[in-house]
Amino acid sequence: MPVEIEFFDDSKELVVGDPSSVSVLKRAFYGRNEGAVVFLFPEEAMYMMDVRNAIVLSENGKELKFNELASHFSECERLMTKYYAFKDWRDRGLVIRPVSEAGKYARNPVHKYPSPGFKVPEYNASARFYSDDNLSVIDDDDIGEKMYLENWFGQHGTYKAEKHGKCNKLDVYETLFLMRHSALKLENASEKDVVKHAKSNNHFFEAIYNVYEDWRLRGFVVKTGFKFGTHFRIYFPGASPALPLNKWIHSKHVLHVFPRDMQLLTSELSRAIRVAHSVKKTFILAIPGKKRIKNVQPDFLLFHRKKGGIETPDSGKPRYLMLALNEDEVISGAYLASAIESAKDTGLNLILAIVDRETSVTHYRVRRIELKDSKYEYYEIDWVQP
Amino acid sequence: MPVEIEFFDDSKELVVGDPSSVSVLKRAFYGRNEGAVVFLFPEEAMYMMDVRNAIVLSENGKELKFNELASHFSECERLMTKYYAFKDWRDRGLVIRPVSEAGKYARNPVHKYPSPGFKVPEYNASARFYSDDNLSVIDDDDIGEKMYLENWFGQHGTYKAEKHGKCNKLDVYETLFLMRHSALKLENASEKDVVKHAKSNNHFFEAIYNVYEDWRLRGFVVKTGFKFGTHFRIYFPGASPALPLNKWIHSKHVLHVFPRDMQLLTSELSRAIRVAHSVKKTFILAIPGKKRIKNVQPDFLLFHRKKGGIETPDSGKPRYLMLALNEDEVISGAYLASAIESAKDTGLNLILAIVDRETSVTHYRVRRIELKDSKYEYYEIDWVQP
Repeated sequence: MPVEIEFFDDSKELVVGDPSSVSVLKRAFYGRNEGAVVFLFPEEAMYMMDVRNAIVLSENGKELKFNELASHFSECERLMTKYYAFKDWRDRGLVIRPVSEAGKYARNPVHKYPSPGFKVPEYNASARFYSDDNLSVIDDDDIGEKMYLENWFGQHGTYKAEKHGKCNKLDVYETLFLMRHSALKLENASEKDVVKHAKSNNHFFEAIYNVYEDWRLRGFVVKTGFKFGTHFRIYFPGASPALPLNKWIHSKHVLHVFPRDMQLLTSELSRAIRVAHSVKKTFILAIPGKKRIKNVQPDFLLFHRKKGGIETPDSGKPRYLMLALNEDEVISGAYLASAIESAKDTGLNLILAIVDRETSVTHYRVRRIELKDSKYEYYEIDWVQP
Repeated sequence: MPVEIEFFDDSKELVVGDPSSVSVLKRAFYGRNEGAVVFLFPEEAMYMMDVRNAIVLSENGKELKFNELASHFSECERLMTKYYAFKDWRDRGLVIRPVSEAGKYARNPVHKYPSPGFKVPEYNASARFYSDDNLSVIDDDDIGEKMYLENWFGQHGTYKAEKHGKCNKLDVYETLFLMRHSALKLENASEKDVVKHAKSNNHFFEAIYNVYEDWRLRGFVVKTGFKFGTHFRIYFPGASPALPLNKWIHSKHVLHVFPRDMQLLTSELSRAIRVAHSVKKTFILAIPGKKRIKNVQPDFLLFHRKKGGIETPDSGKPRYLMLALNEDEVISGAYLASAIESAKDTGLNLILAIVDRETSVTHYRVRRIELKDSKYEYYEIDWVQP
């Protein structure tokens, strides 16, 4: 016998009263239990209808179709995106509840990164700036090689063959950083010129530079992430381009910048995470800027597996909050940051569930990083299969 | 003895006259030979100075530094980007010449794709549009399943489990396509509403839709490319979601849209190509739209390897034209299309050489696709190591 759900038009409540259905629903942690009946929330009723052949009857006894039921909840933003993210979690045999049921937990340990700081040497170098090319070139080989070998500023000689060829080439982030922190002089441009040219190529240059500067001042080496699909790759403090090959430290982290005032398709964010994943790097997201959006609430409270079974509201604790997004929607950095903040307040990590055009769901887990003395928060984002 | 190069300030010519140097340069296909002397072009002189310890002397006998030499050619756009792309090709032991020396060749065979066309059935379905979610849902399971199984429109049931759950979900491209070509009716939105909502999320929606429609009408199945970092993945004519698993045809091609009026960082274009490469799909680029930029000239004429050696201007034919770009610059679809057009006119394929912030170069080869009756040109882009 399929479950029968009654829909009350005025109160928009979905009620199941049949005792055997009620007991099935309670056992599987659906709905809100009140006396002898269960009140379902919309995604639950849609799910029962979609995959369990439940029947939803209106007050006058008419059977509702899926779209009719959904149309009664058209004031819910992104109802279908939430529904398909909900469905996917349920299809995996896991429990998912409304975010309103979230309490306080302590299940979001922060990843502590070393942060020894960096005293930038006074190199007193002089360079020529090539604005079309977003780089500057240092003629003086002694000082150019020194800053390359000591602190991996620029590229002396040739990439992966620093003895082949001359000159140190500084990228535009390194150029500005060394002007501000190490008395680098440009023979043909001021600090202002550099910022102006860089901004003309990339509206978000300053936000990206601020992140570069932050990691450099914490002691990390920050180089282009071009080969890994991100703004930067980073090396932990102590890395050097001068080590012999058998002591070479590969970069294991990439760093991408999503400014708070930037609008991005979720598919574009996902693309950057995908490249990092394909080259087995840890993807770190920075969300710099001042823009604040208050109180973006994730959509669901997620219970996950545990040894020998699943966690439930009865016997276990929730693991994540879920924010459901669809691949063709635009979000801002500020929006994402606010959702992460809400998860942090509950003491849980955030899962981004991105519903693609075929209603297939990809999950990204967001974990906070603590980088002492840093002015920003950073997040490790990794692709997970729940 | 290092090569000595004389620089003439007025004519901006770089001349080598020493007989042994002349013969070395001629043998390696540097410069323009006139009588007993060789005239070098700027990138060549920079290269000789950078990696071969050549000395450049001004008319008054003063030795120029690298930046001094380069500053004399500051009217050349993106001189350093071109120089490092040039250097990389030379470092590989290959010959590279000015694009002005290109003649006419026939070394750019077009890839012919099948194009049987597609007569869209009249499904007469009705759906509800969910504008926040960029999808529409068909209640009628018979017609919904039929259009899914026959022509892979939408997603019936669950992704990779079409019997699990009900309803066919059409993405926004499928929704619009079926409204225009198969009498799909939306109960709560007009064609105009769909376009308006989709454009509010993505300014380039219509250009992307036009490409979707073009491939669909040629007979291809076009589904989301979300998992592969692109707008779409495509299946060649004849693919079906209903085949048993042992006959399942995997998608081997992904399709990405770079509208002519879109501005994109080259690093962003590269990111999309990278994901496709990491999942071993052929990356197809569409450059739709009306905007035209006249006559964008690639930068260099490239000679490549041949069996047992290298091709040279004396004994072989060039293989490609090269357009040098740097990772932090912005290009438009129209700009790229015009450079491809110029290469096509010479009968060579284009190589995009992207110089990253460490002056390391990544090469992408662009090859034209012929899709009969299509209104656009398409290009296979693949990462190559020359």
